[in-house]
Amino acid sequence: MNAGPVPTPSSPPPDVVRAASIELVVTDLAASRRFYVDVLGLVVTQEDDRCVYLRTFEEFIHHNLVLRQGPVAAAAAFSYRVRAPHDLDRAVAFYRELGCRVERRPDGFTAGVGDSVRVEDPLGFPYEFFHDVAHVERLAWRYDLQPPGPLVRLDHFNQVTPDVPRAVRYMEDLGFRVTEDIQDAAGTTYAAWMRRKPTVHDTAMTGGDGPRLHHVAFATHEKHDVLAICDRLGSLRLSDRIERGPGRHGVSNAFYLYLRDPDGHRVEIYTQDYWTGDPDNPVVTWDVHDNQRRDWWGNPVVPSWYTEASLVLDLDGNPQPVLARADTSEMEVTIGADGFSYTRPGDDADALPTWKQGEYKLGHQL
Amino acid sequence: MNAGPVPTPSSPPPDVVRAASIELVVTDLAASRRFYVDVLGLVVTQEDDRCVYLRTFEEFIHHNLVLRQGPVAAAAAFSYRVRAPHDLDRAVAFYRELGCRVERRPDGFTAGVGDSVRVEDPLGFPYEFFHDVAHVERLAWRYDLQPPGPLVRLDHFNQVTPDVPRAVRYMEDLGFRVTEDIQDAAGTTYAAWMRRKPTVHDTAMTGGDGPRLHHVAFATHEKHDVLAICDRLGSLRLSDRIERGPGRHGVSNAFYLYLRDPDGHRVEIYTQDYWTGDPDNPVVTWDVHDNQRRDWWGNPVVPSWYTEASLVLDLDGNPQPVLARADTSEMEVTIGADGFSYTRPGDDADALPTWKQGEYKLGHQL
Amino acid sequence: MNAGPVPTPSSPPPDVVRAASIELVVTDLAASRRFYVDVLGLVVTQEDDRCVYLRTFEEFIHHNLVLRQGPVAAAAAFSYRVRAPHDLDRAVAFYRELGCRVERRPDGFTAGVGDSVRVEDPLGFPYEFFHDVAHVERLAWRYDLQPPGPLVRLDHFNQVTPDVPRAVRYMEDLGFRVTEDIQDAAGTTYAAWMRRKPTVHDTAMTGGDGPRLHHVAFATHEKHDVLAICDRLGSLRLSDRIERGPGRHGVSNAFYLYLRDPDGHRVEIYTQDYWTGDPDNPVVTWDVHDNQRRDWWGNPVVPSWYTEASLVLDLDGNPQPVLARADTSEMEVTIGADGFSYTRPGDDADALPTWKQGEYKLGHQL
Amino acid sequence: MNAGPVPTPSSPPPDVVRAASIELVVTDLAASRRFYVDVLGLVVTQEDDRCVYLRTFEEFIHHNLVLRQGPVAAAAAFSYRVRAPHDLDRAVAFYRELGCRVERRPDGFTAGVGDSVRVEDPLGFPYEFFHDVAHVERLAWRYDLQPPGPLVRLDHFNQVTPDVPRAVRYMEDLGFRVTEDIQDAAGTTYAAWMRRKPTVHDTAMTGGDGPRLHHVAFATHEKHDVLAICDRLGSLRLSDRIERGPGRHGVSNAFYLYLRDPDGHRVEIYTQDYWTGDPDNPVVTWDVHDNQRRDWWGNPVVPSWYTEASLVLDLDGNPQPVLARADTSEMEVTIGADGFSYTRPGDDADALPTWKQGEYKLGHQL
Repeated sequence: MNAGPVPTPSSPPPDVVRAASIELVVTDLAASRRFYVDVLGLVVTQEDDRCVYLRTFEEFIHHNLVLRQGPVAAAAAFSYRVRAPHDLDRAVAFYRELGCRVERRPDGFTAGVGDSVRVEDPLGFPYEFFHDVAHVERLAWRYDLQPPGPLVRLDHFNQVTPDVPRAVRYMEDLGFRVTEDIQDAAGTTYAAWMRRKPTVHDTAMTGGDGPRLHHVAFATHEKHDVLAICDRLGSLRLSDRIERGPGRHGVSNAFYLYLRDPDGHRVEIYTQDYWTGDPDNPVVTWDVHDNQRRDWWGNPVVPSWYTEASLVLDLDGNPQPVLARADTSEMEVTIGADGFSYTRPGDDADALPTWKQGEYKLGHQL
Repeated sequence: MNAGPVPTPSSPPPDVVRAASIELVVTDLAASRRFYVDVLGLVVTQEDDRCVYLRTFEEFIHHNLVLRQGPVAAAAAFSYRVRAPHDLDRAVAFYRELGCRVERRPDGFTAGVGDSVRVEDPLGFPYEFFHDVAHVERLAWRYDLQPPGPLVRLDHFNQVTPDVPRAVRYMEDLGFRVTEDIQDAAGTTYAAWMRRKPTVHDTAMTGGDGPRLHHVAFATHEKHDVLAICDRLGSLRLSDRIERGPGRHGVSNAFYLYLRDPDGHRVEIYTQDYWTGDPDNPVVTWDVHDNQRRDWWGNPVVPSWYTEASLVLDLDGNPQPVLARADTSEMEVTIGADGFSYTRPGDDADALPTWKQGEYKLGHQL
Repeated sequence: MNAGPVPTPSSPPPDVVRAASIELVVTDLAASRRFYVDVLGLVVTQEDDRCVYLRTFEEFIHHNLVLRQGPVAAAAAFSYRVRAPHDLDRAVAFYRELGCRVERRPDGFTAGVGDSVRVEDPLGFPYEFFHDVAHVERLAWRYDLQPPGPLVRLDHFNQVTPDVPRAVRYMEDLGFRVTEDIQDAAGTTYAAWMRRKPTVHDTAMTGGDGPRLHHVAFATHEKHDVLAICDRLGSLRLSDRIERGPGRHGVSNAFYLYLRDPDGHRVEIYTQDYWTGDPDNPVVTWDVHDNQRRDWWGNPVVPSWYTEASLVLDLDGNPQPVLARADTSEMEVTIGADGFSYTRPGDDADALPTWKQGEYKLGHQL
Repeated sequence: MNAGPVPTPSSPPPDVVRAASIELVVTDLAASRRFYVDVLGLVVTQEDDRCVYLRTFEEFIHHNLVLRQGPVAAAAAFSYRVRAPHDLDRAVAFYRELGCRVERRPDGFTAGVGDSVRVEDPLGFPYEFFHDVAHVERLAWRYDLQPPGPLVRLDHFNQVTPDVPRAVRYMEDLGFRVTEDIQDAAGTTYAAWMRRKPTVHDTAMTGGDGPRLHHVAFATHEKHDVLAICDRLGSLRLSDRIERGPGRHGVSNAFYLYLRDPDGHRVEIYTQDYWTGDPDNPVVTWDVHDNQRRDWWGNPVVPSWYTEASLVLDLDGNPQPVLARADTSEMEVTIGADGFSYTRPGDDADALPTWKQGEYKLGHQL
């Protein structure tokens, strides 16, 4: 499987502006609404018995998160906004040439969005492209409505896929560019960050069993905003929703927090990466053994973060089968029984103090 | 051992103003100086080949940290400032009545400090009391000298001692008051926070093998100051100095970070607890099984934080023998093989998701 | 008037713990409630048609702000908590010896407070002393209830009085200590900051026509909390409630913001001064001509801040007559027609750039 | 003068990526270097007796600020990075068609930059376009080198020009888009913000006597970073460099501070505007009489901010003549003798409290 490389279509790709929205299937809509609205503070643009359409405080399009009641928790659509209506024609031609299943609905797949294209992309992900969308009030100036730690933008997706280089080449054909990646000396690529908008990413390709959604990330303005969300979760006795962090990423240099929603969908709260919009933006490559690559402070990555992710749906709404990663896994080579990580290049393999080795490694050692 | 309770002296205790300074014996003075001065940014008041006298940016007394070169890493003095010169007479009488070894030096034990009393207290700790001290410039307004994340005050000590209730009763005789503690339903006390100045503590008594120094804490003004120290450690490739955090404490409601210095002495960076100065300040008691007691966000406490601590010296400069805790340990009852913790009172014993169970527990389970 | 110095009583003063509460008479209780509760986010402990009892998020006593409906906006009581019940006897004796009018009510003057003493003090202010008070939940850990920019403590009062040295001497007799003041080379004192609790002040004495209340200050934890209040006021189209700031004080080194409530009562939002609890805490004296004394960034003080203040009531509820300051005023000597200020000692009198000279001065010059 | 509209060239404009760098002529290079390097903390990439090339911490191109010693303080070049080398050919054709003076240097005008085009644009500004540029280390991860309040990016320019609509139309031909503007009911436009990169602006057109440089803006990550710069200026007794702020803009929703360098060049420190990169990004139009348009907290704009600006140079290095604005000025219609501003739409013309009316107005009234 994951046979050969995805061929480069002769059709030009659609001009993607940004990662704009995600549709999550949730198994208890009321519970999910409580999490995203009452706890995280997202704004309800529209809702009915089946769906809740939410947006962040600086968003002016109808929504950037759709929660839809369904039987199996999964990601139903990774939606990108394209620059012009004709980019939808391009998307159709681009994916048809790749032999992908393509569906176009002039009235859109969700409320608030017009003419849209959904595809099962070569990696098995349900990608959506749209241009027409209803405008709603941008609540950037409505500080009276904002909770401590307001989420202001959808920043990016993160996808789990077995073969990262294969995924990267396909995404480059789609017009994305790599900003950072994680490799080892043997040339294995463990993850890559790819962007259309001039930040570190609109999506990342993370090596693992896939296709699966690793997480969707929403941005705050400041680091204390991220901490405020942690504090509120503690007060609500929901601290077990915090999976990893808060911390500073090495990759992206951003400040982060990972939460798990009531269905286990992972949500990152993210702030302060850097400008990548120059055509010759330097790519940053991290050594997979560098213990500061995923947390600049060297704090251990919890194993669940490496292994758990959400299913994704095909265009009929059925979960895509998950294919195993063939390459070595980042967890195994860094904190597994035979793995190692260092703080300083040249340090011995076992140079990390016990408090930096992580749960998984310690588990093996005891 | 830890025989009976410490008797209450008939002599009145000295009037302690605050935890004021600590003297640490370090095995490589140059390495320690680099850590505290070049990395953490403390200010050198005075130094020679054997000692470095350091202070925080809002301190006006000569120093609040003494690094002294020596053969074995240890804490040599926990120094409290007393209100008046005659409080030294009181300290002498108070500890003599307790049968403790007491030494008084009219010229002080360290540079910058005058008439001082050092004792081996009933718990085996080297406590010091002083009033006379040289004044130096309070650098509060010198933002031009301050690094990102300036340390402004010494906030508190934390001591490891086998029998917490015994320690608390003695410290109450010394005039301290409990502000918070950790107990279980059976009445075992695992730790207690005690104050003279109107914050959560000047020192805490943590149950464990002792007498040992658990940590000394310095305060910053804001949470981003704590994060700035983490970021700098990452840039200097010293992230392995970060042992635990950053995070929000349940106890004290303060924001924290724990570092380990080149000798393994633990240093907390701490900010934003609350006013406790009213005579009827309510004591907050935490259930040892509450997973938010030590980290409000429920993040696991690394085992080293529970088990490792610094030796303390007697008045001859020899390490005090360490006596084992008789009561159950907090680590065992919370994340040990038979321990449990909960996020919500009433949750099942195994209700914590895997990412919240901590390294130690996972180790046992694998 | 302001005849001679206030004599020192032979009776010992009550042991004041801290500035604890203030009672403000407001002319439109609903409007004031909206301001303090809906806008500033204070917590209602109790209310009826005539009074609203409010507290900050870290307060555990019944209230620290009472809003009382009345015909004339004024301050009715500056309330200090004393250490022990017998301190009320001391307060009675102390003020009786000064010839002041004294009223004691074993059941208290307001809800939630027991045995209390109110006096018309030698400066004409309605001071209150109490010990017994109902405890309520300290909401420090209730981040789920806190708005952006939560007010956590009542920090201090600020009183306008014609003769600052006279006021200081009386307050020293009451057990307060000066931490900072503003003087000129001729020895005139323009303002003094005085403390019981170990911060820069529990109250300040500001030279001007008095007795009047200059402001009451509530504390936040961080500077962004203060900014969040400004942002919210903007969103509510209430930015005209912002009188001065935000900015950094020279005196106290704290970060500040001054608001005006619906009656014009001035409220400061304040954070991050420094420890002053040592018995030999160094007093900081500022030159009245130093343009950074009141704003470390040299931003002009708006004239209303110098000239406007709230009436205070006598024990019958009638406004105290306001006596004129005899000494030169700080506004006149700094930004008045003949005044001057400098950024750097030794600079010419007219060295301030136009944007630093302030409204008042510019007014005269045009 | 400012005769008719600038015609739209038939040549396509260059594809501008972003405002990338500015060259300032300074009259005392050592003094300017102290301000930008020692005080603001910019990084020196290269320097000689005549020029200092500086960059912010997240910049990877050679410099984004050139200080050049010269006889008259002025702005010598507003430099934009273009997407591809052939965009320089486009720039030449575009401006030649407009009849502008154009100069192209294959080796660049400054160190570190290759093939460049400089023009005297139709508004009289010295615009530069370049693509080839030397890469240097992006210091984003070098927290060990960063001072409190690190400047991370050049964010935008702000230009003073007599006829804003004329300038806007020309800039739209150059490929820029308006994101926000300030107008009055009669249709006069007082200022417009225009972007290429997806933030609120790469440059703004501010109505006034021009062509002049109003300011260049550098970005920080958080608001406390801006405050840290103020605090440091206070400590260095350079608070008179602070002209306006800190504050929250209405336009852009960003947090701001305006400084004046040793020559009076205005520098803004700026953080946290919003995403504008969608093709249908909603334009925000502010009423010139809305007192929250320039400061969301309603704080007065100091008159110097409206009236003072830097000369700009022609391609021979001589100052461009300054032409007077014909339309009414924003200062006159808002805080001038006949002007007015409101906090709430519908408020009376004189509804602002005295502390919000500003220096200029007060000056007239006294």
